[in-house]
Amino acid sequence: MIGKAYKQPLARRRVGLKFLYLKQEEVVEAGVLDFEAALKDVEEVLRMLARGEVEMPPKVGLEFLFPDGSQKGHILAMPAYLKRLGVAGVKWAAGFFKNPELHSLPHGIDVIILSDPECGRPLAVMDGTLITAVRTGSAAAVGAKYLSAGEARVASVIGVGVVGRAAAHALEKALPRLEEIRLFDLKAEKARLVAQEIAKARAVYSLEEAARGSDVVITATSSHNHFVKLDMLKRDCVCVEVGKNEFEEAVILNASRIVVDYWEQVKSREWVTLTKLVKRGLISESRIEEIAGIVASGGRVSCGGIRFFSPIGMACEDIIVAYRLYREALRRGFGTWLELWEEPLWS
Amino acid sequence: MIGKAYKQPLARRRVGLKFLYLKQEEVVEAGVLDFEAALKDVEEVLRMLARGEVEMPPKVGLEFLFPDGSQKGHILAMPAYLKRLGVAGVKWAAGFFKNPELHSLPHGIDVIILSDPECGRPLAVMDGTLITAVRTGSAAAVGAKYLSAGEARVASVIGVGVVGRAAAHALEKALPRLEEIRLFDLKAEKARLVAQEIAKARAVYSLEEAARGSDVVITATSSHNHFVKLDMLKRDCVCVEVGKNEFEEAVILNASRIVVDYWEQVKSREWVTLTKLVKRGLISESRIEEIAGIVASGGRVSCGGIRFFSPIGMACEDIIVAYRLYREALRRGFGTWLELWEEPLWS
Repeated sequence: MIGKAYKQPLARRRVGLKFLYLKQEEVVEAGVLDFEAALKDVEEVLRMLARGEVEMPPKVGLEFLFPDGSQKGHILAMPAYLKRLGVAGVKWAAGFFKNPELHSLPHGIDVIILSDPECGRPLAVMDGTLITAVRTGSAAAVGAKYLSAGEARVASVIGVGVVGRAAAHALEKALPRLEEIRLFDLKAEKARLVAQEIAKARAVYSLEEAARGSDVVITATSSHNHFVKLDMLKRDCVCVEVGKNEFEEAVILNASRIVVDYWEQVKSREWVTLTKLVKRGLISESRIEEIAGIVASGGRVSCGGIRFFSPIGMACEDIIVAYRLYREALRRGFGTWLELWEEPLWS
Repeated sequence: MIGKAYKQPLARRRVGLKFLYLKQEEVVEAGVLDFEAALKDVEEVLRMLARGEVEMPPKVGLEFLFPDGSQKGHILAMPAYLKRLGVAGVKWAAGFFKNPELHSLPHGIDVIILSDPECGRPLAVMDGTLITAVRTGSAAAVGAKYLSAGEARVASVIGVGVVGRAAAHALEKALPRLEEIRLFDLKAEKARLVAQEIAKARAVYSLEEAARGSDVVITATSSHNHFVKLDMLKRDCVCVEVGKNEFEEAVILNASRIVVDYWEQVKSREWVTLTKLVKRGLISESRIEEIAGIVASGGRVSCGGIRFFSPIGMACEDIIVAYRLYREALRRGFGTWLELWEEPLWS
């Protein structure tokens, strides 16, 4: 066994290193469901990104398979450093599609660590599960706002699981001129329940009823089928593909603008329809725009036709929201203080 | 503000999701300083790696600069999945060289999250700072053991900061036939203090005194100078470069075997001497071996000449050690249980 000699630090005594822990209930208390704040955060971090004030390598991850070789889930490590705000962090983001049925757990389970860019110490550890939903829904709504020139009257959300539900809330705040938000889900009861939360929302009972005539169509399903067809859509609308591959190829091929959040990251996802179309030479890489540039330019896209937006989620969006919640918890004095150490050995 | 409607989960109630938090003192209590166990862990995970039982993408990270553009530090996200053990995780590893002088903090500050590969939930969050030191020292000693055929009589450790100190402890356990472990540090007092912890160790007062005649030379400094020269070394010895670029090019160019831990990862580090020599065409990539293959083959390398080993550290080494400590804490019932949530909203 190890003797007491280890207990004598070589350097002088140091005080304990503390960080704040926030469970999901405290993340809610700190305001994660404040969509106006989340929209502001997302727009701000997109402007930072456009100005080169964000360091964010593409996410890397692990993949987990069932014994039969089919996909069980993945966990992604998503680091980002927001230079202007002076905060860095990582989201460790799990996605296991069968969790609800197999384990009575949510599909996504995320943990976020915030770090001090001066010395690398952890500032906070917190549940990132709702943060993920809220920032994803907000990013979709920011896209809808800038790509519709704020003129949209009717929006629809296809799939109102956690992310679609967040997108519906975010749409309501991002596009105040909206008259109607149509919600469609294969589980009609879900759409009805979410509709009760949002004044302008109503549940609809078919995909066509949702999509036809909508100025904004957001898909947030786990389907890999191209179930949204070009002929369901208005000739002039914004399509936001938050899920996997919900829009058929013709939608993208006929789009007047093709926008992503982070092309380097989208490009590496071979199963994304847009990536496939680029690889097959049907869409030129030079046509692909990033949303950050559009938001930063301040103007909104008012050209007609289909504006297709494919955001796959960026760590910087998580970190800016998490940092706001951390500061709010600090200000109001809640959360659990933990020590990384009382006194570091061997340093 | 957000109404109470948010508090009604769509799905049925679920119980709180808990995970275990271990601060450094508890990581110590769980046995992080048990070098025999750490050596066993490192050897085991190298065998798993050789058998394809480890998923481990190259680490990605963030870089931090001082206002003058010089390097302040970095934080790396290091994920790994140990399939046979059924555990995944990530180390979020900060390295800020000036921390001791600027902030009275250690140079390295690490946090590890362990995750359940069945559903992605966090199992544990813990301090990873000492784990990093111990697994790094142990990996160096495992290299020394397999590349010296266990025949080494004299070893030296150049630089006895946290990692060098761990390497000295690990050497003592890994190579029981060692007669002498020479410790050299620019701060002579450090070498004397560490020497008191290890029966066979003694402090020496010059680099030459350490290196000359040594069968194993481990460098663990933050120097970028090639201060270990070929003519200081025995013709038949094992060189382990744990630090940056301590061995001059001639040492590598004259090596009979060149071994790394994870070539894909070493290759991407352009500042590593070995990488530079490969890029310049002076060493063929085909000559580079990985330590996992050597350990898994069971035999030890007994060829003469210089065996050069450059381990830069692998996430799988962190995860296997962290998982042992987590299980030990579970078994003995210490650590702090935290809830990720009492009841997940919106799921």
